[in-house]
Amino acid sequence: MKIGFLGLGNMGTPMARNLLKAGHDVTGYNRTRRRAEELKAQGGKAAATPADAVSNVEVVITMLADDAALEEVMFGNNGALPAMKTGSIHVSMSTISVSLVERLTEEHGKHRQHFISAPVFGRPEAAEQAKLFIVSAGPAEPIKKCNPIFSALGQRTFDVGEKPSAANVAKLGGNFLIAVTIESFAEALTLGRKHGLDPQIYFEFLTETLFGSPVAKTYGSRIARDNFEPVGFRLPLGLKDVRLALAAAESAAVPMPFATVIRDQMLEALARGMENADWSAFARVVAENAGL
Amino acid sequence: MKIGFLGLGNMGTPMARNLLKAGHDVTGYNRTRRRAEELKAQGGKAAATPADAVSNVEVVITMLADDAALEEVMFGNNGALPAMKTGSIHVSMSTISVSLVERLTEEHGKHRQHFISAPVFGRPEAAEQAKLFIVSAGPAEPIKKCNPIFSALGQRTFDVGEKPSAANVAKLGGNFLIAVTIESFAEALTLGRKHGLDPQIYFEFLTETLFGSPVAKTYGSRIARDNFEPVGFRLPLGLKDVRLALAAAESAAVPMPFATVIRDQMLEALARGMENADWSAFARVVAENAGL
Amino acid sequence: MKIGFLGLGNMGTPMARNLLKAGHDVTGYNRTRRRAEELKAQGGKAAATPADAVSNVEVVITMLADDAALEEVMFGNNGALPAMKTGSIHVSMSTISVSLVERLTEEHGKHRQHFISAPVFGRPEAAEQAKLFIVSAGPAEPIKKCNPIFSALGQRTFDVGEKPSAANVAKLGGNFLIAVTIESFAEALTLGRKHGLDPQIYFEFLTETLFGSPVAKTYGSRIARDNFEPVGFRLPLGLKDVRLALAAAESAAVPMPFATVIRDQMLEALARGMENADWSAFARVVAENAGL
Amino acid sequence: MKIGFLGLGNMGTPMARNLLKAGHDVTGYNRTRRRAEELKAQGGKAAATPADAVSNVEVVITMLADDAALEEVMFGNNGALPAMKTGSIHVSMSTISVSLVERLTEEHGKHRQHFISAPVFGRPEAAEQAKLFIVSAGPAEPIKKCNPIFSALGQRTFDVGEKPSAANVAKLGGNFLIAVTIESFAEALTLGRKHGLDPQIYFEFLTETLFGSPVAKTYGSRIARDNFEPVGFRLPLGLKDVRLALAAAESAAVPMPFATVIRDQMLEALARGMENADWSAFARVVAENAGL
Repeated sequence: MKIGFLGLGNMGTPMARNLLKAGHDVTGYNRTRRRAEELKAQGGKAAATPADAVSNVEVVITMLADDAALEEVMFGNNGALPAMKTGSIHVSMSTISVSLVERLTEEHGKHRQHFISAPVFGRPEAAEQAKLFIVSAGPAEPIKKCNPIFSALGQRTFDVGEKPSAANVAKLGGNFLIAVTIESFAEALTLGRKHGLDPQIYFEFLTETLFGSPVAKTYGSRIARDNFEPVGFRLPLGLKDVRLALAAAESAAVPMPFATVIRDQMLEALARGMENADWSAFARVVAENAGL
Repeated sequence: MKIGFLGLGNMGTPMARNLLKAGHDVTGYNRTRRRAEELKAQGGKAAATPADAVSNVEVVITMLADDAALEEVMFGNNGALPAMKTGSIHVSMSTISVSLVERLTEEHGKHRQHFISAPVFGRPEAAEQAKLFIVSAGPAEPIKKCNPIFSALGQRTFDVGEKPSAANVAKLGGNFLIAVTIESFAEALTLGRKHGLDPQIYFEFLTETLFGSPVAKTYGSRIARDNFEPVGFRLPLGLKDVRLALAAAESAAVPMPFATVIRDQMLEALARGMENADWSAFARVVAENAGL
Repeated sequence: MKIGFLGLGNMGTPMARNLLKAGHDVTGYNRTRRRAEELKAQGGKAAATPADAVSNVEVVITMLADDAALEEVMFGNNGALPAMKTGSIHVSMSTISVSLVERLTEEHGKHRQHFISAPVFGRPEAAEQAKLFIVSAGPAEPIKKCNPIFSALGQRTFDVGEKPSAANVAKLGGNFLIAVTIESFAEALTLGRKHGLDPQIYFEFLTETLFGSPVAKTYGSRIARDNFEPVGFRLPLGLKDVRLALAAAESAAVPMPFATVIRDQMLEALARGMENADWSAFARVVAENAGL
Repeated sequence: MKIGFLGLGNMGTPMARNLLKAGHDVTGYNRTRRRAEELKAQGGKAAATPADAVSNVEVVITMLADDAALEEVMFGNNGALPAMKTGSIHVSMSTISVSLVERLTEEHGKHRQHFISAPVFGRPEAAEQAKLFIVSAGPAEPIKKCNPIFSALGQRTFDVGEKPSAANVAKLGGNFLIAVTIESFAEALTLGRKHGLDPQIYFEFLTETLFGSPVAKTYGSRIARDNFEPVGFRLPLGLKDVRLALAAAESAAVPMPFATVIRDQMLEALARGMENADWSAFARVVAENAGL
């Protein structure tokens, strides 16, 4: 398939590479040109503008840092949206706001293009190994057409219906649950430490009995070791996702007290200078607030 | 081994039965005599008072509803503590306060008896099937001696050190994490429902990707189905455990913002008349507060 | 002075009238024309567009519902900003976001116009009686020139410095404190009611001893009587102000746990159908959550 | 009147002295004898035990640090309760738990004695100047008899009914509102500081417009100056009162989210080593958490 790939960062680069490996014809665009040249060196093509990357393809994939970056490549100078062919498909795979998903759904409709929201779960290592989880939503026919793409990128895709924003909400809720895991393990392990429990033993007890989800194992282990390296996803990006979840909650009148606690903990972490730390490092706020 | 078993409720009865099956000599005591008679019918002995149940045994197991009940059987009229033999072992398996564990540690020491804290994870079904998880703490020699008991009751025992209260804190932290799972899945699924996500599909997506702990599967499924039957553990008992966790946190100066949110949700559930519901039903408060 | 007044709602209309009474030459603009005609009937002038209202004046006052409304009259079709004379002054008196204040400061600077932020405290009755409190910030000379205007509108003006956004933050913090008063009196009076205290007696005790601020007297009395009529300021506007405070807090990395609690209570009130109630009615959520 | 006064601390000593000045016959008891001797030097009598202090009086006043101290003097060795005369009155003026008030109501009833709950608002300076506020509850006749006592101690007494615990709840709710004032001014002033507002100017603006309660003036000024000296009431005592309020709330199924926030802030303050600071110093936690 001919694919335009916009956004070649820590996640986008390994994803585009996996599409090449699967035999697709991939044209990449990135704000800093060097990343697109690297893709070219691996068998892809490099485009100078978003419009150039998408004008001749069936599927456009976007994987960008935030709403502003996506708006820029779609609606900005030499933007992708007006350059896309009638009947082509935009698959938005980054974590963006519900309101932007709704706007894109509407704009692509006006241009007789298709829009699918298909955000992913997984850190850069999972992207590399094509082990992402994908949650997709959108009209049935275009989703069917994109299945080979999803297979090349992830270990499993979950279809949650025809309304694109539903996939986005599913993703935001998932990121919220990761943050909940971080905060809750931080609280439990801090309580334990202050009462003389060895954090490593306590972590093993918890994850080998009732609380052994993949997320708990990954993040709980970091908290037990009090070591938040390497940095896979920076704290301000984590805060951004919580903010998007709270905005989606506010627009639907849903109180989410846990999400508000997490937001405050992350702000506290930023105020203490952790803006370059991995987002899981906000667990340290819990320990520090207990005098550890 | 000769064992005195105090407290034959929903949990204690199947536990005592499993000890009988494993060949131990078990004398049971329960506040309402009928339960002890049932144990007798199954090959055990029935005692009329706590003192009678323990005066001639090597190991005393207690499995009672709360601090007050345990204080009554240990220190009250015909209480167990003064009747226990020198060198015998008290294994406290219910969820009690850190301060009562500390008091028992001290009192048994004065009487030259041993004290082990070994609370369990698992609902009555798990007790029945000898599938409990046990977290033990106390002096090494008595714990070693009790290993056959733990094997007869649970699928695995975790030893967390010599300080009995540490096992208790481990258990309170675990119950806290179960309540966190309930609240967080309630928030995520409510957010999803109000944005058009099918709760069953969203639950499956979450637990089959990153969040699939045993606790998430059990309780998340109840929340997705909005059905909190059968009642395994009543809400006021759940609130009691959160209260004990908060007390342990307060005594060690540990802020636990998630625990305080949960406490408020449970009080709200009680105020709405859910005192006979399963404790997981406080998830309904989240949905109702969002207008569902 | 020649004044252009944009926004003739519940607050703007009595304010513009007070400026007429004080002898100023006031041209009014409102999205729905009727309000401007009413002002004309009282001795003012009616303009058809924002640009018409401001093209010939020394001072432009804006009093609009939210950021979007202000952006529309300033930057939209026939907007005020490009029509204002060099050296004229824009006095923004409504409660808007810190980021919009910063944008206006910059844009007016580019057009060699002056910008003052001067939001007000007070409900429509206070506006009518020229009893508003005004908190102003901006360059010294223009503020001095506007003092007669402030005198005609309010009982007292507080100057908080040269940076316009500071006045805005001061106002948002003040609205936050009103919401805090509502929530805290609701919690205290609910606790009292459930323990048999008469809410009216308890309210009097509190406000006649240590807690007798004007805000506590106004809102505490509503809560004690459980009567939130008349509607002076609708709940969604109250939520908007809390959202703006939280955004200002987030941009400066300030955790505000009380503000997050209030946000959740207001969302809960909206989910229960209170969108047309006075914002103080979110106190009912506190009572209802305790089963009252 | 013949009065026994139990508890001659920072509050009790000036109160007992004011009773002497008003012409009453006061016998004092304190755990550390020296305080009672000082009272003797000022015209009172010194008793060696609680029983000695009360065996011959009409009215017994207690002013002690906490539940445990009051239980000790009433029910402990040489305790006051069995030594009090039939028909005499116990006026409990310290801040104690609702459950202890209920127990005292019952026990005094059994001994055909009267029990009044009459806690006070005010710091030691107010006690000195007989400027306390008193909130009383209990049977009408004994309260009437105690009016001269209340007049000698405070500036005003509020009678809230016949049920003694109601006065106690009123007091706990009041202390909660003081803590709310501290937290909320800390949040607002911190937000202001991080946006360039001078805290002193902002404090004046707030307290001279809508938020000028006596409590806001006293504590807001401390926060604006970031100076929490002198220490009138230590942080652990403040936490104790919040704990009592939360216990009263829990027993009546009242969620109090603001109270739970305050509890966490106080624990954080303790974890940072503020156990000897004035309780208002927990405001510093808010500033520090924002990086100030």
